[in-house]
Amino acid sequence: MAEPLFERLCLVGIGLIGSSIARVARKRGDIARRIVVTTRRPETLQRARELGLADEVEPDIGRAVEGCDCVVLCVPVGVYAQVMAQIAPHLAKGCILTDVGSTKGSVVRDLSPLLPEGVHLVPAHPMAGTEHSGPDAGFAELFQGRYAIITPLPGSDPAAVEKVKEMWRRCGSMIETLDPVTHDKVVAMVSHLPHLIAFTICGTADDLAEETKEAVLNFAASGFRDFTRIAGSDVDMWRDIFLNNREALLEMLARFSEDAHALGRAVRYGQADFIEDRIRRGRKIRRELIERKQA
Amino acid sequence: MAEPLFERLCLVGIGLIGSSIARVARKRGDIARRIVVTTRRPETLQRARELGLADEVEPDIGRAVEGCDCVVLCVPVGVYAQVMAQIAPHLAKGCILTDVGSTKGSVVRDLSPLLPEGVHLVPAHPMAGTEHSGPDAGFAELFQGRYAIITPLPGSDPAAVEKVKEMWRRCGSMIETLDPVTHDKVVAMVSHLPHLIAFTICGTADDLAEETKEAVLNFAASGFRDFTRIAGSDVDMWRDIFLNNREALLEMLARFSEDAHALGRAVRYGQADFIEDRIRRGRKIRRELIERKQA
Repeated sequence: MAEPLFERLCLVGIGLIGSSIARVARKRGDIARRIVVTTRRPETLQRARELGLADEVEPDIGRAVEGCDCVVLCVPVGVYAQVMAQIAPHLAKGCILTDVGSTKGSVVRDLSPLLPEGVHLVPAHPMAGTEHSGPDAGFAELFQGRYAIITPLPGSDPAAVEKVKEMWRRCGSMIETLDPVTHDKVVAMVSHLPHLIAFTICGTADDLAEETKEAVLNFAASGFRDFTRIAGSDVDMWRDIFLNNREALLEMLARFSEDAHALGRAVRYGQADFIEDRIRRGRKIRRELIERKQA
Repeated sequence: MAEPLFERLCLVGIGLIGSSIARVARKRGDIARRIVVTTRRPETLQRARELGLADEVEPDIGRAVEGCDCVVLCVPVGVYAQVMAQIAPHLAKGCILTDVGSTKGSVVRDLSPLLPEGVHLVPAHPMAGTEHSGPDAGFAELFQGRYAIITPLPGSDPAAVEKVKEMWRRCGSMIETLDPVTHDKVVAMVSHLPHLIAFTICGTADDLAEETKEAVLNFAASGFRDFTRIAGSDVDMWRDIFLNNREALLEMLARFSEDAHALGRAVRYGQADFIEDRIRRGRKIRRELIERKQA
Protein backbone atom coordinates (compact mmCIF):
# COMPACT_ATOMS: atom_id res chain seq x y z
CA MET A 1 0.00 0.00 0.00
CA ALA A 2 1.18 3.55 -0.81
CA GLU A 3 1.97 5.91 2.06
CA PRO A 4 -1.13 7.81 3.22
CA LEU A 5 -1.47 11.13 1.40
CA PHE A 6 -2.36 12.91 4.61
CA GLU A 7 -1.44 12.36 8.24
CA ARG A 8 -4.61 13.81 9.68
CA LEU A 9 -7.63 14.55 7.47
CA CYS A 10 -10.64 16.42 8.83
CA LEU A 11 -14.06 16.11 7.21
CA VAL A 12 -16.26 19.05 8.20
CA GLY A 13 -19.76 17.69 7.57
CA ILE A 14 -20.61 14.03 7.15
CA GLY A 15 -23.52 13.86 4.70
CA LEU A 16 -23.65 11.97 1.42
CA ILE A 17 -20.31 13.30 0.12
CA GLY A 18 -18.42 13.52 3.42
CA SER A 19 -19.41 10.03 4.48
CA SER A 20 -18.52 8.65 1.05
CA ILE A 21 -15.03 10.17 1.32
CA ALA A 22 -14.75 8.67 4.83
CA ARG A 23 -15.81 5.26 3.54
CA VAL A 24 -13.37 5.17 0.63
CA ALA A 25 -10.57 6.51 2.85
CA ARG A 26 -11.26 3.85 5.52
CA LYS A 27 -11.43 1.16 2.88
CA ARG A 28 -8.21 2.08 1.08
CA GLY A 29 -6.08 3.28 3.98
CA ASP A 30 -3.80 5.30 1.71
CA ILE A 31 -5.73 8.56 1.78
CA ALA A 32 -5.22 9.52 5.42
CA ARG A 33 -3.56 7.96 8.44
CA ARG A 34 -6.21 9.41 10.72
CA ILE A 35 -9.71 10.65 9.88
CA VAL A 36 -11.39 13.25 12.05
CA VAL A 37 -15.08 14.02 11.58
CA THR A 38 -16.86 17.08 12.90
CA THR A 39 -20.41 18.26 12.31
CA ARG A 40 -22.90 20.60 13.92
CA ARG A 41 -25.70 18.24 14.91
CA PRO A 42 -25.00 15.83 17.79
CA GLU A 43 -27.25 13.12 16.29
CA THR A 44 -25.30 13.16 13.02
CA LEU A 45 -22.02 12.98 14.93
CA GLN A 46 -23.40 10.06 16.90
CA ARG A 47 -24.44 8.32 13.68
CA ALA A 48 -20.94 8.86 12.20
CA ARG A 49 -19.56 7.22 15.35
CA GLU A 50 -21.95 4.26 15.04
CA LEU A 51 -21.08 3.80 11.38
CA GLY A 52 -17.36 3.78 12.24
CA LEU A 53 -16.64 6.53 9.73
CA ALA A 54 -13.76 8.14 11.64
CA ASP A 55 -10.85 7.61 14.02
CA GLU A 56 -12.01 10.66 15.94
CA VAL A 57 -15.45 12.21 16.14
CA GLU A 58 -15.08 15.73 17.50
CA PRO A 59 -17.99 18.06 18.27
CA ASP A 60 -15.74 21.14 18.60
CA ILE A 61 -15.00 22.28 15.05
CA GLY A 62 -11.92 24.30 16.07
CA ARG A 63 -10.37 21.37 17.91
CA ALA A 64 -11.27 19.04 15.02
CA VAL A 65 -9.20 20.90 12.44
CA GLU A 66 -6.22 21.53 14.75
CA GLY A 67 -3.08 19.74 13.63
CA CYS A 68 -4.67 18.54 10.37
CA ASP A 69 -2.70 18.64 7.13
CA CYS A 70 -5.94 18.51 5.15
CA VAL A 71 -9.42 19.86 5.90
CA VAL A 72 -12.32 19.12 3.54
CA LEU A 73 -15.48 21.21 3.84
CA CYS A 74 -18.48 18.96 3.12
CA VAL A 75 -21.24 21.31 4.28
CA PRO A 76 -23.79 23.30 2.21
CA VAL A 77 -22.03 26.22 0.47
CA GLY A 78 -24.27 28.71 2.29
CA VAL A 79 -22.46 28.14 5.60
CA TYR A 80 -18.87 28.36 4.30
CA ALA A 81 -18.26 31.93 5.52
CA GLN A 82 -19.49 31.05 8.99
CA VAL A 83 -17.50 27.80 9.12
CA MET A 84 -14.37 29.59 7.91
CA ALA A 85 -14.67 32.14 10.73
CA GLN A 86 -14.72 29.24 13.19
CA ILE A 87 -11.84 27.23 11.76
CA ALA A 88 -9.45 29.90 10.44
CA PRO A 89 -7.70 30.55 13.81
CA HIS A 90 -7.13 26.80 14.25
CA LEU A 91 -5.72 25.84 10.85
CA ALA A 92 -2.11 24.64 10.98
CA LYS A 93 0.57 26.20 8.76
CA GLY A 94 0.93 24.11 5.60
CA CYS A 95 -2.60 22.72 5.90
CA ILE A 96 -4.53 22.17 2.68
CA LEU A 97 -8.07 23.54 2.85
CA THR A 98 -10.33 22.06 0.21
CA ASP A 99 -14.03 21.44 -0.23
CA VAL A 100 -16.68 19.59 -2.25
CA GLY A 101 -19.12 22.45 -2.90
CA SER A 102 -21.10 22.69 -6.12
CA THR A 103 -20.35 26.39 -6.63
CA LYS A 104 -16.79 27.67 -6.82
CA GLY A 105 -17.01 31.45 -7.25
CA SER A 106 -18.83 31.71 -3.92
CA VAL A 107 -16.30 29.43 -2.23
CA VAL A 108 -13.42 31.65 -3.27
CA ARG A 109 -15.45 34.68 -2.18
CA ASP A 110 -16.26 33.21 1.25
CA LEU A 111 -12.99 31.44 2.15
CA SER A 112 -10.23 33.67 0.73
CA PRO A 113 -10.65 36.73 2.99
CA LEU A 114 -9.99 34.75 6.19
CA LEU A 115 -7.35 32.38 4.79
CA PRO A 116 -4.35 32.35 7.17
CA GLU A 117 -0.84 32.82 5.79
CA GLY A 118 0.64 29.43 4.85
CA VAL A 119 -2.70 27.60 4.47
CA HIS A 120 -3.32 26.35 0.91
CA LEU A 121 -6.82 26.80 -0.48
CA VAL A 122 -7.60 24.33 -3.30
CA PRO A 123 -11.34 24.26 -4.07
CA ALA A 124 -12.71 21.10 -5.63
CA HIS A 125 -16.03 19.65 -6.73
CA PRO A 126 -16.69 15.94 -7.18
CA MET A 127 -19.41 15.61 -9.86
CA ALA A 128 -21.17 12.76 -8.18
CA GLY A 129 -24.26 12.44 -6.08
CA THR A 130 -27.55 10.74 -5.57
CA GLU A 131 -30.90 12.13 -4.46
CA HIS A 132 -30.24 10.80 -0.95
CA SER A 133 -28.53 12.64 1.88
CA GLY A 134 -27.03 12.10 5.32
CA PRO A 135 -24.25 9.86 6.69
CA ASP A 136 -26.14 6.67 5.92
CA ALA A 137 -26.50 7.58 2.24
CA GLY A 138 -22.77 7.54 1.43
CA PHE A 139 -20.87 4.67 -0.15
CA ALA A 140 -17.23 4.09 -1.06
CA GLU A 141 -17.90 3.75 -4.80
CA LEU A 142 -19.76 7.06 -5.22
CA PHE A 143 -16.89 8.81 -7.01
CA GLN A 144 -15.82 5.86 -9.15
CA GLY A 145 -15.56 6.89 -12.81
CA ARG A 146 -17.00 10.35 -12.10
CA TYR A 147 -15.21 13.65 -12.65
CA ALA A 148 -13.71 15.66 -9.83
CA ILE A 149 -13.20 19.25 -10.93
CA ILE A 150 -10.34 21.11 -9.27
CA THR A 151 -10.43 24.92 -9.45
CA PRO A 152 -7.03 26.17 -8.26
CA LEU A 153 -6.51 29.89 -7.68
CA PRO A 154 -3.84 31.83 -9.57
CA GLY A 155 -1.41 31.68 -6.64
CA SER A 156 -2.17 28.10 -5.50
CA ASP A 157 0.82 25.99 -4.39
CA PRO A 158 1.34 23.34 -7.11
CA ALA A 159 2.22 20.65 -4.54
CA ALA A 160 -1.06 21.28 -2.67
CA VAL A 161 -3.04 21.17 -5.92
CA GLU A 162 -1.38 17.89 -6.83
CA LYS A 163 -2.22 16.38 -3.44
CA VAL A 164 -5.91 17.27 -3.83
CA LYS A 165 -5.91 15.75 -7.32
CA GLU A 166 -4.27 12.61 -5.96
CA MET A 167 -6.87 12.37 -3.19
CA TRP A 168 -9.64 12.35 -5.81
CA ARG A 169 -7.76 9.89 -8.01
CA ARG A 170 -7.60 7.54 -5.03
CA CYS A 171 -11.34 8.06 -4.54
CA GLY A 172 -11.75 6.71 -8.09
CA SER A 173 -12.42 10.00 -9.87
CA MET A 174 -11.21 11.36 -13.16
CA ILE A 175 -9.61 14.78 -12.75
CA GLU A 176 -10.40 17.99 -14.61
CA THR A 177 -9.10 21.47 -13.92
CA LEU A 178 -11.27 24.52 -14.61
CA ASP A 179 -11.20 28.13 -13.52
CA PRO A 180 -14.00 28.95 -11.04
CA VAL A 181 -16.00 31.06 -13.51
CA THR A 182 -16.08 28.37 -16.21
CA HIS A 183 -16.83 25.76 -13.55
CA ASP A 184 -19.83 27.71 -12.34
CA LYS A 185 -21.23 28.08 -15.87
CA VAL A 186 -20.72 24.42 -16.74
CA VAL A 187 -22.34 23.08 -13.57
CA ALA A 188 -25.15 25.63 -13.83
CA MET A 189 -25.90 24.01 -17.19
CA VAL A 190 -25.46 20.32 -16.46
CA SER A 191 -26.64 20.22 -12.85
CA HIS A 192 -28.18 23.38 -11.37
CA LEU A 193 -30.54 24.20 -14.25
CA PRO A 194 -31.80 20.59 -14.51
CA HIS A 195 -32.56 20.71 -10.79
CA LEU A 196 -34.36 24.04 -11.12
CA ILE A 197 -36.40 22.56 -13.97
CA ALA A 198 -37.16 19.38 -12.04
CA PHE A 199 -38.32 21.25 -8.92
CA THR A 200 -40.43 23.54 -11.09
CA ILE A 201 -42.16 20.94 -13.24
CA CYS A 202 -43.27 19.01 -10.17
CA GLY A 203 -45.10 22.10 -8.96
CA THR A 204 -46.56 22.85 -12.38
CA ALA A 205 -47.90 19.29 -12.57
CA ASP A 206 -49.31 19.49 -9.07
CA ASP A 207 -51.21 22.67 -9.98
CA LEU A 208 -52.69 20.97 -13.03
CA ALA A 209 -53.72 18.01 -10.91
CA GLU A 210 -55.63 20.28 -8.53
CA GLU A 211 -57.27 22.07 -11.41
CA THR A 212 -58.31 19.05 -13.48
CA LYS A 213 -59.07 16.97 -10.38
CA GLU A 214 -57.19 14.18 -12.10
CA ALA A 215 -54.42 12.12 -10.61
CA VAL A 216 -51.88 13.55 -13.03
CA LEU A 217 -49.05 11.81 -11.25
CA ASN A 218 -50.59 8.41 -11.90
CA PHE A 219 -49.59 8.81 -15.51
CA ALA A 220 -46.01 9.78 -14.88
CA ALA A 221 -44.49 6.61 -16.28
CA SER A 222 -43.18 7.85 -19.56
CA GLY A 223 -41.22 11.01 -19.13
CA PHE A 224 -42.05 12.80 -15.95
CA ARG A 225 -40.58 10.13 -13.73
CA ASP A 226 -36.98 10.84 -14.76
CA PHE A 227 -37.45 14.47 -13.77
CA THR A 228 -38.65 13.68 -10.30
CA ARG A 229 -35.66 11.59 -9.25
CA ILE A 230 -33.48 14.67 -8.93
CA ALA A 231 -36.40 16.64 -7.52
CA GLY A 232 -36.04 14.47 -4.41
CA SER A 233 -32.78 16.21 -3.45
CA ASP A 234 -31.75 17.93 -0.22
CA VAL A 235 -33.47 21.26 0.49
CA ASP A 236 -30.70 23.17 2.31
CA MET A 237 -28.04 22.11 -0.13
CA TRP A 238 -30.02 23.14 -3.20
CA ARG A 239 -31.25 26.42 -1.77
CA ASP A 240 -27.62 27.30 -1.06
CA ILE A 241 -26.46 26.24 -4.51
CA PHE A 242 -29.11 28.33 -6.24
CA LEU A 243 -28.31 31.39 -4.12
CA ASN A 244 -24.55 30.97 -4.52
CA ASN A 245 -24.49 30.42 -8.26
CA ARG A 246 -27.07 33.07 -9.04
CA GLU A 247 -25.50 34.73 -12.07
CA ALA A 248 -24.55 31.56 -13.93
CA LEU A 249 -27.86 29.85 -13.11
CA LEU A 250 -29.94 32.80 -14.31
CA GLU A 251 -27.86 32.97 -17.49
CA MET A 252 -28.45 29.28 -18.22
CA LEU A 253 -32.16 29.58 -17.41
CA ALA A 254 -32.38 32.45 -19.90
CA ARG A 255 -30.55 30.45 -22.60
CA PHE A 256 -32.71 27.39 -22.01
CA SER A 257 -35.84 29.49 -21.97
CA GLU A 258 -35.02 31.06 -25.36
CA ASP A 259 -34.42 27.62 -26.83
CA ALA A 260 -37.59 26.12 -25.32
CA HIS A 261 -39.68 28.97 -26.68
CA ALA A 262 -38.06 28.65 -30.10
CA LEU A 263 -39.17 25.01 -30.12
CA GLY A 264 -42.60 26.04 -28.82
CA ARG A 265 -42.88 28.53 -31.67
CA ALA A 266 -42.03 25.80 -34.19
CA VAL A 267 -44.80 23.67 -32.68
CA ARG A 268 -47.24 26.57 -32.97
CA TYR A 269 -46.44 27.17 -36.63
CA GLY A 270 -46.11 23.51 -37.58
CA GLN A 271 -42.42 23.71 -38.57
CA ALA A 272 -41.70 19.98 -38.78
CA ASP A 273 -38.08 20.39 -39.97
CA PHE A 274 -37.14 22.59 -37.03
CA ILE A 275 -38.76 20.17 -34.58
CA GLU A 276 -37.05 17.14 -36.12
CA ASP A 277 -33.72 18.94 -36.00
CA ARG A 278 -34.08 19.56 -32.25
CA ILE A 279 -35.10 15.98 -31.55
CA ARG A 280 -32.12 14.70 -33.58
CA ARG A 281 -29.79 16.93 -31.61
CA GLY A 282 -31.12 15.46 -28.36
CA ARG A 283 -30.50 11.97 -29.69
CA LYS A 284 -26.97 12.85 -30.79
CA ILE A 285 -26.14 14.15 -27.32
CA ARG A 286 -27.63 11.09 -25.71
CA ARG A 287 -25.34 8.96 -27.88
CA GLU A 288 -22.32 11.09 -26.96
CA LEU A 289 -23.05 10.64 -23.28
CA ILE A 290 -23.27 6.90 -23.75
CA GLU A 291 -19.93 6.91 -25.59
CA ARG A 292 -18.38 8.91 -22.75
CA LYS A 293 -19.83 6.44 -20.28
CA GLN A 294 -21.66 9.26 -18.49
CA ALA A 295 -25.16 8.02 -19.39
CA MET B 1 -57.23 -20.26 -20.18
CA ALA B 2 -60.00 -17.79 -20.91
CA GLU B 3 -61.51 -17.59 -24.40
CA PRO B 4 -59.56 -15.22 -26.66
CA LEU B 5 -61.04 -11.71 -26.55
CA PHE B 6 -60.75 -11.38 -30.31
CA GLU B 7 -60.86 -13.85 -33.18
CA ARG B 8 -58.62 -11.90 -35.48
CA LEU B 9 -56.56 -8.93 -34.22
CA CYS B 10 -54.66 -6.70 -36.62
CA LEU B 11 -51.71 -4.61 -35.46
CA VAL B 12 -51.05 -1.80 -37.91
CA GLY B 13 -47.41 -0.91 -37.20
CA ILE B 14 -45.01 -3.11 -35.27
CA GLY B 15 -42.65 -0.77 -33.41
CA LEU B 16 -42.02 -0.69 -29.66
CA ILE B 17 -45.71 -0.67 -28.69
CA GLY B 18 -47.10 -2.85 -31.49
CA SER B 19 -44.47 -5.53 -31.00
CA SER B 20 -44.99 -5.48 -27.24
CA ILE B 21 -48.72 -6.07 -27.72
CA ALA B 22 -47.87 -8.90 -30.14
CA ARG B 23 -45.49 -10.45 -27.61
CA VAL B 24 -47.90 -10.34 -24.69
CA ALA B 25 -50.73 -11.63 -26.92
CA ARG B 26 -48.58 -14.52 -28.18
CA LYS B 27 -47.44 -15.30 -24.66
CA ARG B 28 -50.91 -15.31 -23.11
CA GLY B 29 -53.00 -16.70 -25.93
CA ASP B 30 -56.21 -15.20 -24.52
CA ILE B 31 -56.06 -11.85 -26.26
CA ALA B 32 -56.55 -13.01 -29.85
CA ARG B 33 -56.92 -16.30 -31.65
CA ARG B 34 -54.99 -14.96 -34.65
CA ILE B 35 -52.63 -12.01 -34.86
CA VAL B 36 -52.14 -10.19 -38.16
CA VAL B 37 -49.33 -7.68 -38.54
CA THR B 38 -49.05 -5.10 -41.29
CA THR B 39 -46.59 -2.27 -41.70
CA ARG B 40 -45.31 -0.07 -44.49
CA ARG B 41 -41.63 -0.97 -44.68
CA PRO B 42 -40.79 -4.44 -46.08
CA GLU B 43 -37.69 -4.77 -43.80
CA THR B 44 -39.82 -4.20 -40.70
CA LEU B 45 -42.38 -6.72 -41.92
CA GLN B 46 -39.58 -9.20 -42.53
CA ARG B 47 -38.22 -8.57 -39.03
CA ALA B 48 -41.71 -9.16 -37.55
CA ARG B 49 -41.75 -12.46 -39.43
CA GLU B 50 -38.32 -13.46 -38.14
CA LEU B 51 -39.30 -12.58 -34.57
CA GLY B 52 -42.44 -14.69 -34.88
CA LEU B 53 -44.66 -11.84 -33.77
CA ALA B 54 -47.72 -12.81 -35.83
CA ASP B 55 -49.71 -15.64 -37.33
CA GLU B 56 -49.94 -13.63 -40.53
CA VAL B 57 -47.64 -10.93 -41.84
CA GLU B 58 -49.47 -9.01 -44.55
CA PRO B 59 -47.92 -6.20 -46.62
CA ASP B 60 -51.30 -5.07 -48.01
CA ILE B 61 -52.88 -2.96 -45.28
CA GLY B 62 -56.41 -3.32 -46.72
CA ARG B 63 -56.18 -7.10 -46.87
CA ALA B 64 -54.61 -7.15 -43.36
CA VAL B 65 -57.60 -5.56 -41.65
CA GLU B 66 -60.23 -7.50 -43.61
CA GLY B 67 -62.27 -9.84 -41.44
CA CYS B 68 -60.71 -8.57 -38.22
CA ASP B 69 -62.83 -7.98 -35.13
CA CYS B 70 -60.17 -5.66 -33.70
CA VAL B 71 -57.68 -3.34 -35.40
CA VAL B 72 -55.07 -1.50 -33.32
CA LEU B 73 -53.24 1.44 -34.90
CA CYS B 74 -49.64 1.45 -33.63
CA VAL B 75 -48.18 4.01 -36.04
CA PRO B 76 -47.11 7.64 -35.42
CA VAL B 77 -50.21 9.83 -34.95
CA GLY B 78 -49.21 11.96 -37.94
CA VAL B 79 -50.17 9.21 -40.41
CA TYR B 80 -53.57 8.27 -38.91
CA ALA B 81 -55.63 10.18 -41.50
CA GLN B 82 -53.75 8.52 -44.34
CA VAL B 83 -53.96 5.05 -42.76
CA MET B 84 -57.67 5.51 -42.10
CA ALA B 85 -58.27 6.34 -45.77
CA GLN B 86 -56.60 3.05 -46.67
CA ILE B 87 -58.34 0.79 -44.15
CA ALA B 88 -61.84 2.31 -43.87
CA PRO B 89 -63.27 0.48 -46.94
CA HIS B 90 -61.96 -2.84 -45.59
CA LEU B 91 -63.14 -2.70 -41.98
CA ALA B 92 -65.72 -5.37 -41.12
CA LYS B 93 -69.04 -4.47 -39.54
CA GLY B 94 -68.76 -4.81 -35.76
CA CYS B 95 -64.98 -4.35 -35.81
CA ILE B 96 -63.40 -2.44 -32.95
CA LEU B 97 -60.94 0.20 -34.15
CA THR B 98 -58.55 1.29 -31.40
CA ASP B 99 -55.07 2.76 -31.20
CA VAL B 100 -52.12 3.48 -28.91
CA GLY B 101 -51.38 7.08 -29.92
CA SER B 102 -50.12 9.64 -27.41
CA THR B 103 -52.59 12.32 -28.50
CA LYS B 104 -56.32 11.73 -28.49
CA GLY B 105 -57.97 14.90 -29.82
CA SER B 106 -56.11 14.46 -33.10
CA VAL B 107 -57.07 10.79 -33.26
CA VAL B 108 -60.75 11.58 -32.99
CA ARG B 109 -60.26 14.38 -35.55
CA ASP B 110 -58.47 12.09 -38.03
CA LEU B 111 -60.41 8.84 -37.65
CA SER B 112 -64.04 9.86 -37.03
CA PRO B 113 -64.84 11.39 -40.44
CA LEU B 114 -64.14 8.14 -42.32
CA LEU B 115 -65.48 5.74 -39.70
CA PRO B 116 -67.80 3.24 -41.44
CA GLU B 117 -71.25 2.57 -40.01
CA GLY B 118 -71.08 -0.28 -37.48
CA VAL B 119 -67.35 0.05 -36.73
CA HIS B 120 -66.62 0.97 -33.09
CA LEU B 121 -63.94 3.58 -32.48
CA VAL B 122 -62.41 3.31 -28.98
CA PRO B 123 -59.18 5.37 -28.73
CA ALA B 124 -56.68 4.28 -26.10
CA HIS B 125 -53.22 5.23 -24.89
CA PRO B 126 -50.97 2.89 -22.92
CA MET B 127 -48.72 5.11 -20.75
CA ALA B 128 -45.64 3.02 -21.18
CA GLY B 129 -42.54 3.26 -23.28
CA THR B 130 -38.79 3.28 -23.39
CA GLU B 131 -36.38 5.42 -25.40
CA HIS B 132 -35.96 2.52 -27.85
CA SER B 133 -38.00 1.88 -30.98
CA GLY B 134 -38.67 -0.78 -33.61
CA PRO B 135 -39.92 -4.39 -33.48
CA ASP B 136 -36.84 -5.60 -31.61
CA ALA B 137 -37.35 -3.09 -28.79
CA GLY B 138 -40.68 -4.49 -27.59
CA PHE B 139 -41.18 -6.88 -24.69
CA ALA B 140 -44.20 -8.61 -23.19
CA GLU B 141 -43.87 -6.90 -19.79
CA LEU B 142 -43.85 -3.32 -21.12
CA PHE B 143 -47.39 -2.54 -19.94
CA GLN B 144 -47.17 -4.34 -16.60
CA GLY B 145 -48.30 -2.04 -13.78
CA ARG B 146 -48.62 0.96 -16.11
CA TYR B 147 -51.79 2.88 -16.88
CA ALA B 148 -53.74 2.47 -20.09
CA ILE B 149 -55.99 5.46 -20.65
CA ILE B 150 -59.18 4.80 -22.57
CA THR B 151 -60.92 7.82 -24.12
CA PRO B 152 -64.34 6.65 -25.34
CA LEU B 153 -66.47 8.99 -27.43
CA PRO B 154 -69.96 10.06 -26.28
CA GLY B 155 -71.65 7.49 -28.54
CA SER B 156 -69.18 4.63 -28.04
CA ASP B 157 -70.66 1.14 -27.72
CA PRO B 158 -70.20 0.07 -24.05
CA ALA B 159 -69.39 -3.53 -25.04
CA ALA B 160 -66.62 -2.36 -27.40
CA VAL B 161 -65.21 -0.07 -24.69
CA GLU B 162 -65.24 -2.95 -22.23
CA LYS B 163 -63.39 -5.21 -24.67
CA VAL B 164 -60.63 -2.63 -25.19
CA LYS B 165 -60.31 -2.24 -21.41
CA GLU B 166 -60.10 -5.99 -21.01
CA MET B 167 -57.41 -6.20 -23.69
CA TRP B 168 -55.28 -3.74 -21.71
CA ARG B 169 -56.01 -5.52 -18.43
CA ARG B 170 -54.72 -8.71 -20.01
CA CYS B 171 -51.62 -6.79 -21.12
CA GLY B 172 -51.03 -6.06 -17.43
CA SER B 173 -52.20 -2.44 -17.40
CA MET B 174 -54.29 -0.51 -14.92
CA ILE B 175 -57.25 1.17 -16.61
CA GLU B 176 -58.28 4.82 -16.47
CA THR B 177 -60.96 6.56 -18.48
CA LEU B 178 -60.58 10.20 -19.49
CA ASP B 179 -62.23 12.43 -22.06
CA PRO B 180 -59.88 13.26 -24.96
CA VAL B 181 -59.38 16.92 -23.95
CA THR B 182 -58.36 16.10 -20.38
CA HIS B 183 -56.19 13.27 -21.66
CA ASP B 184 -54.32 15.62 -23.96
CA LYS B 185 -53.67 18.13 -21.17
CA VAL B 186 -52.51 15.50 -18.71
CA VAL B 187 -50.10 13.81 -21.11
CA ALA B 188 -48.86 17.19 -22.36
CA MET B 189 -47.84 17.79 -18.75
CA VAL B 190 -46.40 14.44 -17.71
CA SER B 191 -44.91 13.33 -20.99
CA HIS B 192 -44.87 15.79 -23.90
CA LEU B 193 -43.54 18.80 -21.99
CA PRO B 194 -40.77 16.74 -20.30
CA HIS B 195 -39.73 15.55 -23.75
CA LEU B 196 -39.75 19.08 -25.15
CA ILE B 197 -37.60 20.17 -22.21
CA ALA B 198 -35.22 17.25 -22.61
CA PHE B 199 -34.72 17.82 -26.34
CA THR B 200 -34.18 21.53 -25.68
CA ILE B 201 -31.71 21.31 -22.83
CA CYS B 202 -29.47 18.98 -24.83
CA GLY B 203 -29.15 21.67 -27.49
CA THR B 204 -28.64 24.45 -24.95
CA ALA B 205 -25.82 22.44 -23.35
CA ASP B 206 -24.26 21.70 -26.71
CA ASP B 207 -24.19 25.42 -27.55
CA LEU B 208 -22.47 26.18 -24.24
CA ALA B 209 -19.92 23.44 -24.93
CA GLU B 210 -19.03 24.99 -28.27
CA GLU B 211 -18.76 28.41 -26.71
CA THR B 212 -16.68 27.52 -23.65
CA LYS B 213 -14.68 24.90 -25.55
CA GLU B 214 -15.23 22.68 -22.57
CA ALA B 215 -16.51 19.15 -22.65
CA VAL B 216 -19.68 20.13 -20.83
CA LEU B 217 -21.13 16.67 -21.31
CA ASN B 218 -18.26 15.09 -19.43
CA PHE B 219 -19.75 16.53 -16.27
CA ALA B 220 -23.27 15.31 -16.83
CA ALA B 221 -23.28 12.79 -14.01
CA SER B 222 -25.41 14.60 -11.50
CA GLY B 223 -28.56 15.90 -13.08
CA PHE B 224 -28.29 16.26 -16.80
CA ARG B 225 -28.04 12.53 -17.42
CA ASP B 226 -31.64 11.85 -16.38
CA PHE B 227 -32.84 14.40 -18.92
CA THR B 228 -31.00 12.83 -21.81
CA ARG B 229 -32.51 9.37 -21.49
CA ILE B 230 -35.84 10.53 -22.86
CA ALA B 231 -34.04 12.80 -25.34
CA GLY B 232 -32.97 9.58 -27.11
CA SER B 233 -36.53 8.95 -28.32
CA ASP B 234 -37.88 8.34 -31.83
CA VAL B 235 -37.86 11.39 -34.14
CA ASP B 236 -40.97 10.73 -36.27
CA MET B 237 -43.09 9.76 -33.31
CA TRP B 238 -42.21 12.83 -31.28
CA ARG B 239 -42.50 15.29 -34.17
CA ASP B 240 -46.01 13.94 -34.74
CA ILE B 241 -46.92 14.11 -31.07
CA PHE B 242 -45.79 17.74 -30.78
CA LEU B 243 -47.66 18.74 -33.92
CA ASN B 244 -50.81 16.84 -32.94
CA ASN B 245 -51.04 18.06 -29.35
CA ARG B 246 -50.12 21.62 -30.17
CA GLU B 247 -52.62 23.51 -28.01
CA ALA B 248 -52.18 21.49 -24.85
CA LEU B 249 -48.40 21.35 -25.20
CA LEU B 250 -48.10 25.12 -25.70
CA GLU B 251 -50.36 25.69 -22.71
CA MET B 252 -48.22 23.46 -20.49
CA LEU B 253 -45.01 25.06 -21.77
CA ALA B 254 -46.45 28.46 -20.87
CA ARG B 255 -47.43 27.28 -17.36
CA PHE B 256 -44.04 25.69 -16.77
CA SER B 257 -42.28 28.74 -18.11
CA GLU B 258 -44.12 31.06 -15.73
CA ASP B 259 -43.21 28.81 -12.81
CA ALA B 260 -39.55 28.48 -13.86
CA HIS B 261 -39.24 32.24 -14.16
CA ALA B 262 -40.90 32.74 -10.79
CA LEU B 263 -38.22 30.50 -9.29
CA GLY B 264 -35.54 32.31 -11.30
CA ARG B 265 -36.82 35.61 -9.91
CA ALA B 266 -36.58 34.25 -6.37
CA VAL B 267 -32.98 33.26 -7.07
CA ARG B 268 -32.23 36.74 -8.40
CA TYR B 269 -33.66 38.45 -5.32
CA GLY B 270 -32.33 35.92 -2.80
CA GLN B 271 -35.80 34.79 -1.61
CA ALA B 272 -34.69 31.71 0.34
CA ASP B 273 -38.20 30.84 1.63
CA PHE B 274 -39.69 30.78 -1.84
CA ILE B 275 -36.85 28.59 -3.14
CA GLU B 276 -37.11 26.16 -0.21
CA ASP B 277 -40.84 25.92 -0.73
CA ARG B 278 -40.39 24.89 -4.38
CA ILE B 279 -37.72 22.33 -3.54
CA ARG B 280 -39.96 20.86 -0.81
CA ARG B 281 -42.81 20.59 -3.29
CA GLY B 282 -40.57 18.65 -5.67
CA ARG B 283 -39.62 16.27 -2.87
CA LYS B 284 -43.23 15.78 -1.88
CA ILE B 285 -44.18 14.84 -5.43
CA ARG B 286 -41.23 12.50 -5.69
CA ARG B 287 -42.49 10.75 -2.55
CA GLU B 288 -46.02 10.55 -3.93
CA LEU B 289 -44.74 8.92 -7.11
CA ILE B 290 -42.84 6.37 -5.05
CA GLU B 291 -45.97 5.63 -3.02
CA ARG B 292 -47.95 5.18 -6.24
CA LYS B 293 -45.21 2.87 -7.51
CA GLN B 294 -44.76 5.10 -10.57
CA ALA B 295 -41.22 6.20 -9.66
